[in-house]
Amino acid sequence: MQALPTKAYGATGSIFNGLKPMEIERTPPQADEVHIDILYCGVCHSDLHQVKNDWHNTIYPCVPGHEIIGRVIGVGSAVTKFKAGDVVGVGCMIDSCGACSACQEGEENYCEGPVSWTATYNGYMKPQNKDFNTFGGYSTNIVVKESFVLRIPEALDIKAAAPILCAGITTYSPLKYWQVGPGSSVAVVGIGGLGHMAVQLARALGATVTAITRDADKQPDAEKLGAHQVLVSTDKKAMEAYELQFDFILITIPDAFEVNDYVKLAKRNGVITTVGLIGPYKAPLDNQEIAMHRRSVAGSVIGGIAETQEVLEFCAKHQILPEVEMIRMQDINDAYDKMLDKEVRFRYVIDMQSLKDAE
Amino acid sequence: MQALPTKAYGATGSIFNGLKPMEIERTPPQADEVHIDILYCGVCHSDLHQVKNDWHNTIYPCVPGHEIIGRVIGVGSAVTKFKAGDVVGVGCMIDSCGACSACQEGEENYCEGPVSWTATYNGYMKPQNKDFNTFGGYSTNIVVKESFVLRIPEALDIKAAAPILCAGITTYSPLKYWQVGPGSSVAVVGIGGLGHMAVQLARALGATVTAITRDADKQPDAEKLGAHQVLVSTDKKAMEAYELQFDFILITIPDAFEVNDYVKLAKRNGVITTVGLIGPYKAPLDNQEIAMHRRSVAGSVIGGIAETQEVLEFCAKHQILPEVEMIRMQDINDAYDKMLDKEVRFRYVIDMQSLKDAE
Repeated sequence: MQALPTKAYGATGSIFNGLKPMEIERTPPQADEVHIDILYCGVCHSDLHQVKNDWHNTIYPCVPGHEIIGRVIGVGSAVTKFKAGDVVGVGCMIDSCGACSACQEGEENYCEGPVSWTATYNGYMKPQNKDFNTFGGYSTNIVVKESFVLRIPEALDIKAAAPILCAGITTYSPLKYWQVGPGSSVAVVGIGGLGHMAVQLARALGATVTAITRDADKQPDAEKLGAHQVLVSTDKKAMEAYELQFDFILITIPDAFEVNDYVKLAKRNGVITTVGLIGPYKAPLDNQEIAMHRRSVAGSVIGGIAETQEVLEFCAKHQILPEVEMIRMQDINDAYDKMLDKEVRFRYVIDMQSLKDAE
Repeated sequence: MQALPTKAYGATGSIFNGLKPMEIERTPPQADEVHIDILYCGVCHSDLHQVKNDWHNTIYPCVPGHEIIGRVIGVGSAVTKFKAGDVVGVGCMIDSCGACSACQEGEENYCEGPVSWTATYNGYMKPQNKDFNTFGGYSTNIVVKESFVLRIPEALDIKAAAPILCAGITTYSPLKYWQVGPGSSVAVVGIGGLGHMAVQLARALGATVTAITRDADKQPDAEKLGAHQVLVSTDKKAMEAYELQFDFILITIPDAFEVNDYVKLAKRNGVITTVGLIGPYKAPLDNQEIAMHRRSVAGSVIGGIAETQEVLEFCAKHQILPEVEMIRMQDINDAYDKMLDKEVRFRYVIDMQSLKDAE
């Protein structure tokens, strides 16, 4: 089969000096695959970590992007769920082993197969082909196995929906797993890409929501998103006043931080769950604080495919949308600079037409 | 009311140079109190930490002992549950606020009152009287509020039962809270005073039990206690072979250790609970290991009074007993030396007759 030449933006080497335009190849869809014309792609903090090789596992060239919204332009012969013209999404995963207990239970995100799940970018194409790298959504089209393609509900604004596929599911899944609902007292720490979805989702699930941010300027935004109250983490007195207050604390800080400060805010039997941090905390956990109120410190990684479909429907039903700022593909390096400077409010989305139109 | 002069053993100063005989005073029982002649008292690792001021909160003189078995010799006018002659027990707590949600729900061990629960030794006698220290079971008698006194089932050997009141409940409570039962795969880390109870209790609850110890010599003992298998933690290959194997890992190591080594052994959704460590772990928790299988790191402190009664009945029903070595009160310093050298197998119990007989 003939490869499909595809325009993309990616990092070429391990010393990161910006993303550059490049051409990659897509393989035409196999029987169980869907060919998607990419319309929009969200910009996730992970993209930045990955291209900079912060996790020491980047394969170059690296084409990021795992919040993909597109339109089906072709399907393999065995595809039954999608047809040309459908608006679809692709999140962080495009494959998994399918055989382990996690996959069998629909939690592909916890796949225990030989190489875990296949990431949408910087992933092994197949377990048996370890040196074949996957390329993500900073590109004009992608080919993905039907079972990893999501249906985008009509009620969702497709220009804004992309971040639900990572930021949305990453925060929804732990809220559901730890049974947040009416009566729950929830804190969301870090009001950025993930946190601003978590506040909306926890609120829609019926919880009382406190946004915790080190940036007092985010207070009006957090309230607009649905936070009942806002706590500024640098205010020690305010933090003390919130000790033993929360059933569930969802921490979205993407870099090493002092988790003990947040442990104290959890109630007896309370759970502190960190999403977004890949690696160790800043300091050892104090088991005295944990044990004396039977608290738990947990972590969570995105969500399964069925649950990703569920959060899309949930967002459509409750009219929850990411706050996005649309950018052109050509502006990605500037966007990364602003993310590092924390100038971005919530989430950038790339309008992929800008790449298609480029010479 | 006239104070009751009472023989005891305690530490007199912050530079620990052994326990010494001393005389303390007990107040005769108030209306709701029970006066207990102490028959046996278990020797807990906490006793050693406390007299050495390892936790920087010891009030001297310090009379340890919170695994007390005795016989009722007098009751206050309002006491209804006990009468002279009853065999009873006292564990780690002798009071709590009674008003907070934890106390109201029978979890006095998680009391959120002004000074938390009152410890059997080195505790404030009353919240309003902060400089009055409590004295524990290394003494000939004790006076305790009826609601904190346990009934010792007849089927239990009173010479061996004392450690159930701390080592037993401390391990039983988390096993129950995290729903260990038939089908559970449980690891118990550290096969000492707490761990040897945990192995027996988890087995009796129906779990498949793996004992993890750094001391290969403990294998036969661990198997005798009911462990289905024994894993030596210093054997790196063996540890690797047990990755992703356990639903629940109960860690009883009493000093700072590297928890990440054990996190890896937990299954998806598995829980690692540390009892016995008061303070920080050795190194920062790695959230990648936690999140990638949605594991939790938790802690737990003893158990409530109702649950302590429950574990006593459970031990009686399943004929579970601590492995004890009876010593005289006068041999306590030698016993502490052996605990530090890890020569003790499981638990020392002091025969308090030795103190009563002393000149």
